[in-house]
Amino acid sequence: MSQPYDRVFNFSAGPCTLEVEVLEEAREGLLNWRGTGMSVMEMSHRGKAYDGIIRKAEADLRQLMGIPDNYKVLFLQGGASLQNTMVPMSFLGAGETADYIVTGAWGKKSEEAAQMIGKVNSAYSGKSHNYSDIPGPEEIALSVNPAYVHYTSNETIQGVEFPRALEFKAPVVCDMSSNILSRPVDVSKFHIIYAGAQKNMGPAGVTLVIISDEMLAKAPEKTHPMLDYRLNVENESMYNTPPCWGIYMCGLTYAWLLRNGGVPAMYERNKGKAAIVYKAIDESSGFYKGHACPHCRSLMNVTFNLPSEELTKDFIKVAEENKLDGLKGHRSVGGIRASIYNAFPREGCVVLADVMRDFAQRKG
Amino acid sequence: MSQPYDRVFNFSAGPCTLEVEVLEEAREGLLNWRGTGMSVMEMSHRGKAYDGIIRKAEADLRQLMGIPDNYKVLFLQGGASLQNTMVPMSFLGAGETADYIVTGAWGKKSEEAAQMIGKVNSAYSGKSHNYSDIPGPEEIALSVNPAYVHYTSNETIQGVEFPRALEFKAPVVCDMSSNILSRPVDVSKFHIIYAGAQKNMGPAGVTLVIISDEMLAKAPEKTHPMLDYRLNVENESMYNTPPCWGIYMCGLTYAWLLRNGGVPAMYERNKGKAAIVYKAIDESSGFYKGHACPHCRSLMNVTFNLPSEELTKDFIKVAEENKLDGLKGHRSVGGIRASIYNAFPREGCVVLADVMRDFAQRKG
Repeated sequence: MSQPYDRVFNFSAGPCTLEVEVLEEAREGLLNWRGTGMSVMEMSHRGKAYDGIIRKAEADLRQLMGIPDNYKVLFLQGGASLQNTMVPMSFLGAGETADYIVTGAWGKKSEEAAQMIGKVNSAYSGKSHNYSDIPGPEEIALSVNPAYVHYTSNETIQGVEFPRALEFKAPVVCDMSSNILSRPVDVSKFHIIYAGAQKNMGPAGVTLVIISDEMLAKAPEKTHPMLDYRLNVENESMYNTPPCWGIYMCGLTYAWLLRNGGVPAMYERNKGKAAIVYKAIDESSGFYKGHACPHCRSLMNVTFNLPSEELTKDFIKVAEENKLDGLKGHRSVGGIRASIYNAFPREGCVVLADVMRDFAQRKG
Repeated sequence: MSQPYDRVFNFSAGPCTLEVEVLEEAREGLLNWRGTGMSVMEMSHRGKAYDGIIRKAEADLRQLMGIPDNYKVLFLQGGASLQNTMVPMSFLGAGETADYIVTGAWGKKSEEAAQMIGKVNSAYSGKSHNYSDIPGPEEIALSVNPAYVHYTSNETIQGVEFPRALEFKAPVVCDMSSNILSRPVDVSKFHIIYAGAQKNMGPAGVTLVIISDEMLAKAPEKTHPMLDYRLNVENESMYNTPPCWGIYMCGLTYAWLLRNGGVPAMYERNKGKAAIVYKAIDESSGFYKGHACPHCRSLMNVTFNLPSEELTKDFIKVAEENKLDGLKGHRSVGGIRASIYNAFPREGCVVLADVMRDFAQRKG
């Protein structure tokens, strides 16, 4: 069975597959967007046409996530990695402590970036078990009065996801890069949510930040312009030229999500997709070993190992022959990683599971 | 006469018009790039296909600009605005002074960003004449031993350009956002060149940095990851996910430049294009008044005023009827700004000059 445009099933962890409809729409206007006589890439970010694009993107996102009015939405540059620095720069003052719950490689990077700026309490680390599990409430050792608590809702590399949002008295800051918009989230439980676009929203180069007015009020009055949340809010993400094309692509994705039942529908679809692959792991009589503990298995990144490195290489080769691309796991976990974000088609999960079963039968 | 795809002549200052060939090539592969089965927006930045794209972009740029081997090339995020902060963060140490030559709004922003970090000597400011001129050598008052000297080779808002590169004993740092690749430049005379992509290279969201090994050696051993030149160099612009699509578009532009005679040919073309518009100013018997002094008129941004604000509005209306878009000047200068970067077609300058002559005749 062949994919439209002879496309492959792209399991890459991000950048990753985008919805065909979204790409078609982008292609349609590439030399002349809706009679403006220019591409979205060529528009002044301060002009009427682009103003409509960015406002619609924000409005659609607000609707999709139910973002309360007392939260600001920013489209910035620098990825979640720059947020890892901007958050403590703005919200971890002298004499304060920030708590970090580290369940994988990205959380670790967030923690390290904060340690360069101020005092950090490692409230939990899953390093001892190579980040295969999430902590229970009793395993999280918060400091007395943290400036904020940071965690990563889904760890892309390890494939470990919190099935429920964490709640604390202190302001919660969450890196949602790899599972934003994949499941319902109560935004009001967070003070800062940030996410690189390149998993569930659009191409790399856009960073979404959702920040409460209450948190914003704690930001320094003035800091380095591009690292200044206040300035970015005052300028509605246009202190400097924003990554216009990327924001436009995110907007197309938001509109596609709204046309297709929004986040709840996506969540159902994602559970179904992930179940197909996890089932193939669980029914392989131990040939495939999932990395994450079952209760915190990610719906976005399915990670598993094969009995040997040779078999892993062989599996990847067979997968590629079946047009399954980008399955190689991160070197820190090894094995296979199947990233199956919102836009990844269910059909690809079915093909992967078939290939897995067939391969295990032949080699197991 | 109609433009391909019914496009307008887009005089926007950035984002701005891109070459039709470049956009066509981008459209061609939008759902499946060269048989990879995916768009460039969907590719893993660590995969073979994207590796080829970013390496070719760098190689072509090196060829176009004659970048010596002892210079590194980076494709980053955050725009020239983030460079305005990163440069002094890394190269303006305690007890040091950095010299800023300010010939317009962007230079002023660079200077202000540096003042938040360390000691700045304002070596020249054109503020008194609203940035209509550049300094002669005798007007530049350098400090005794500056850490570096910063200037802006072309001021987008005021339309003021240095016809020749400045040379100093101290390391020269130059914001070339709005005239990079538009005229030959001896890279070896600079230690840092930076430029936002959205004028002469591609869509907004990519920042080019060219830095000498000598300068790099002076960077701090370790600083905040996304603000760390060393780390970005060590990771070949991939410490985090780069703005892949934007870099790809820049690469298409570099290839287009190489196919069309490179920078020297572009320089000749740009001189011709600018001359068409400046001639219409100079032959209007004072109806149009150029903002920049003739000896430093920008080849990229032609700025001029009309006798009244009413006439300016009227002119913009008439221009739009002729499919001339984006001509409104920045509020700080008023009047008209015609941005005519590399990809802007000569034909558009001819039409603008015709409209100018006709308008002056009717209203003058």
